[in-house]
Amino acid sequence: MTGGRPRVFMHDVSLRDGLQAAPVFVPTDDKVALADALSATGLARIEVTSYTSPQAIPMLADAAEVMRRIRRAPGVEYTVLVPNLRGAERALEAPPDEFNLVMSCSETHNLANLRMTREQSVRALRQVIRLADEAGVAVNVSLSCAFGCPMEGEVPEAPVLDLAARFLAAGAQGVTLCDTTGMAYPGQVAALSRRFIDRHPTAQLTLHLHNTRGMGLANALAGLQAGGRRFDAALGGVGGCPYAPGATGNICTEDLVHMLELEGCDTGVDLAALLDCARRLRAQVGHDLPGQVVKAGRRLDLHPAPA
Amino acid sequence: MTGGRPRVFMHDVSLRDGLQAAPVFVPTDDKVALADALSATGLARIEVTSYTSPQAIPMLADAAEVMRRIRRAPGVEYTVLVPNLRGAERALEAPPDEFNLVMSCSETHNLANLRMTREQSVRALRQVIRLADEAGVAVNVSLSCAFGCPMEGEVPEAPVLDLAARFLAAGAQGVTLCDTTGMAYPGQVAALSRRFIDRHPTAQLTLHLHNTRGMGLANALAGLQAGGRRFDAALGGVGGCPYAPGATGNICTEDLVHMLELEGCDTGVDLAALLDCARRLRAQVGHDLPGQVVKAGRRLDLHPAPA
Repeated sequence: MTGGRPRVFMHDVSLRDGLQAAPVFVPTDDKVALADALSATGLARIEVTSYTSPQAIPMLADAAEVMRRIRRAPGVEYTVLVPNLRGAERALEAPPDEFNLVMSCSETHNLANLRMTREQSVRALRQVIRLADEAGVAVNVSLSCAFGCPMEGEVPEAPVLDLAARFLAAGAQGVTLCDTTGMAYPGQVAALSRRFIDRHPTAQLTLHLHNTRGMGLANALAGLQAGGRRFDAALGGVGGCPYAPGATGNICTEDLVHMLELEGCDTGVDLAALLDCARRLRAQVGHDLPGQVVKAGRRLDLHPAPA
Repeated sequence: MTGGRPRVFMHDVSLRDGLQAAPVFVPTDDKVALADALSATGLARIEVTSYTSPQAIPMLADAAEVMRRIRRAPGVEYTVLVPNLRGAERALEAPPDEFNLVMSCSETHNLANLRMTREQSVRALRQVIRLADEAGVAVNVSLSCAFGCPMEGEVPEAPVLDLAARFLAAGAQGVTLCDTTGMAYPGQVAALSRRFIDRHPTAQLTLHLHNTRGMGLANALAGLQAGGRRFDAALGGVGGCPYAPGATGNICTEDLVHMLELEGCDTGVDLAALLDCARRLRAQVGHDLPGQVVKAGRRLDLHPAPA
């Protein structure tokens, strides 16, 4: 990095992307306590929950209660995943700072996951953007499979950039490019990030990376080098299927902060406080998580020399 | 990457760095079979074993037998770890292509691990280089703690580059910069690699990285960007302590090959064959390994769309 200490904005998605697939329902009290602990670490944004139907994702059925009970810290943005107009209406009962909308760049994946064509999704999400606009809530759109689809394979850049442009034109403040199933590689992350930033220099670009094939932090590094300044991540890398120990989920918030600070970035995050949160989540989900720094310690956590 | 498809040389160290800490003695037959399978994958170099004293590392007490029995494939370089003159003499009973000598850049680590000062190590290893020279065996020197010492903390670049220069002047064909306990970060790897390459443009520089803090492949990417073209790695990332699931060892050979090929490098490696080797090693050591691609599949190993 050149030219001073770049400010990087960390978005933690543990409470949403991590807990939605947890093997046990994490009690509402624990979710609220974790959100409050995260609020004190210096994270820029916290994705608190999802207003998906409780039948679809029972682990987050307490979305409204969690949003009512968390203590919001000044300077932290609280976002929630909103799948549709019904979810948006529920979310407005305790308005977040932002709605995070989601659809896929892959037609097959969108049909499989959301049971809509991409065009149907765009139309439905535009309605949500209008509602958000009336309510004074900002909108981010997360584009799944931006780096590949596990069913279609390669996803060309054109539809990804086209969807991003349409949502930004419709009023979204930002777009998240999601490597939903860990198919991204560094050169691809850098190229797509550069193209996005060239076209939309003032829009918020977020990279949402998974460590499925071990390249999570390499992809984050490539995104950083290309000008990416916002990253989704989850404590401990939570979010993979707990029954398949290797199928890791999101890149790990604390490991990413540890790397970014060593790279000379200013994340604004208190890493020691974040590591405490990671240990707390580990206890809540009741299984080991892939995060490494919580096990190995920070780079300069030294050991005594033998006598 | 620009300017064509860079040739990258993969060195697999599973049989040495991986198995030396295995919880069970891997039978000699299995080691030989794995070495022979690795020889058919297109790896540039295989570190077959170590001539450390069998009392110190009982898991590799069969070094001489393994070296006698492996089938050497044309084009593959077979290297062995040699700690001292006695080990070198034993190794010459079945001469490898290369001796890999080792000492630490950190005085404290060298004293703790090798019970010698760094200057004593340099003198002792120079004797080994003379013996290798007489026997027509090439020499590489692996410098431990080149990116930090778990007891001293930061290791300045100066002693690392000084040791490298002295060993190259003494006749070594190459130097490996080892991130022994996973303290390296990408900017550091790039800076030290660049400095080394500037000073020794024709010497073989190898990067030996660990994934202890999750940055293994990010560090490899940074090393590649800085001009590094040789990497040590181990199947499955074997080499961490098996009783501490998170304390990963080397970066994973197959995950690194997977990334490097996506980055446009020519590793010469048949990834499918390498994944078979990783599965074989997994069965031999009897515990899960951190490698991800063997679990998740390659990037474009697709899944059927739902009906």
